[in-house]
Amino acid sequence: MNVLIVHAHHEPQSFNTAMLNLAVEVLEGQGHAVVVSDLYAMNFNPVATADDFHQRANSEHLIYALEQRNGYNTGTLAADITQELEKLKWADLIILNFPIYWFSMPAILKGWIDRVFISGFCYGGVRIYDRGGLKGKKAMLAFSLGGQDHMFGPEAIHGELDTLLRPIQRGVLGYVGLSVLPPFVAFHVPYISVEARRDYLEQYRQHLLTLDDRPSLTFPSLDDYDDMLHPKTTLATA
Amino acid sequence: MNVLIVHAHHEPQSFNTAMLNLAVEVLEGQGHAVVVSDLYAMNFNPVATADDFHQRANSEHLIYALEQRNGYNTGTLAADITQELEKLKWADLIILNFPIYWFSMPAILKGWIDRVFISGFCYGGVRIYDRGGLKGKKAMLAFSLGGQDHMFGPEAIHGELDTLLRPIQRGVLGYVGLSVLPPFVAFHVPYISVEARRDYLEQYRQHLLTLDDRPSLTFPSLDDYDDMLHPKTTLATA
Repeated sequence: MNVLIVHAHHEPQSFNTAMLNLAVEVLEGQGHAVVVSDLYAMNFNPVATADDFHQRANSEHLIYALEQRNGYNTGTLAADITQELEKLKWADLIILNFPIYWFSMPAILKGWIDRVFISGFCYGGVRIYDRGGLKGKKAMLAFSLGGQDHMFGPEAIHGELDTLLRPIQRGVLGYVGLSVLPPFVAFHVPYISVEARRDYLEQYRQHLLTLDDRPSLTFPSLDDYDDMLHPKTTLATA
Repeated sequence: MNVLIVHAHHEPQSFNTAMLNLAVEVLEGQGHAVVVSDLYAMNFNPVATADDFHQRANSEHLIYALEQRNGYNTGTLAADITQELEKLKWADLIILNFPIYWFSMPAILKGWIDRVFISGFCYGGVRIYDRGGLKGKKAMLAFSLGGQDHMFGPEAIHGELDTLLRPIQRGVLGYVGLSVLPPFVAFHVPYISVEARRDYLEQYRQHLLTLDDRPSLTFPSLDDYDDMLHPKTTLATA
């Protein structure tokens, strides 16, 4: 497999960076080719602006998604976007490795999505979910967070972790057709012992060695919706 | 009321910017004081780095939340963060005005949250939800999106909009103690007629004129959790 790891932590000594390094080691050890986009080290620009397009379809009024399509079709996207897009095309598996900020991605990673997951190639019209532009590839989240395990669940203070991850796992990765593997989660990272971190890294190693054993998450199928994306049949509500 | 509107659209002619301009007009017309943080116009930096702290509690290893607390306590946060923090303190109502990107905020706005909603002042330890640092203030989302109304709901292709907004409304705004008013939503904006946009702006005007009539969203109360944030009583699951 070709594996792209997109890494979004600003501290080289962090546990999160140790997760990145471990993933490179384990995946290369299995014979996979691994490329890392280390967003902080690259000084990646996460802000979507008119500068992303060397040539505009409409130079008077910026509609970002329409300019993405034009930029892709005319080969006039900014160089940093094109470079990341080439990595996406090359990859069979994309791992997003990041610390949770506000139950979501750090801005530098959110902006990588905003700018690189372009309309026209990654999705467009009804080319979403199981007809998305990245269909056939896999993706996985690998993240650390400050909260503890017991703070997530149906009766827990923050509610269910899967629900909080839905905008990313379903709304980003599933949306563009990626097959999404269950995430690797390391809780309470800033506050745990060296031994607990070592245990987490060992768990992550096992997680990476057994990726093929885990079924992908389930998302909508376009087969169940009409051309206007209305449901074809109304299911009984619970 | 003092109202802070944080605006995150790169096109001055956009419908989203028309929403901003209307909100300023309506709220000032009601006698409120309004301040706008126009993030693109300010060239706001959304990336959380060590440069955010003029003085470090730990210069060897960056743990961002801990440096936020130290920076706030010692008055050594970066100037742009301090400036936005002063606006937050001043405001009684905070409106986030933005186009949905990937069922979430554009990176420039996510980074405003990452950098300005600092640990130590906005939250910390069990100072969250109804004990959060911004308790007593209100917040509201006002956003445009490409999707249509019928694409959101229990059986709809993207699921329930409230669920997709949960990381923002509950995980960011509710988490820091803000009382969250129901959002204003304009669907399908890039594709609708001038008349439909005019209708949406009129709806937004009415929404702004009747803010006090709408009950806030409901989030967890710390009263129902112990000091370790375990639920005090186990509720029957449905």
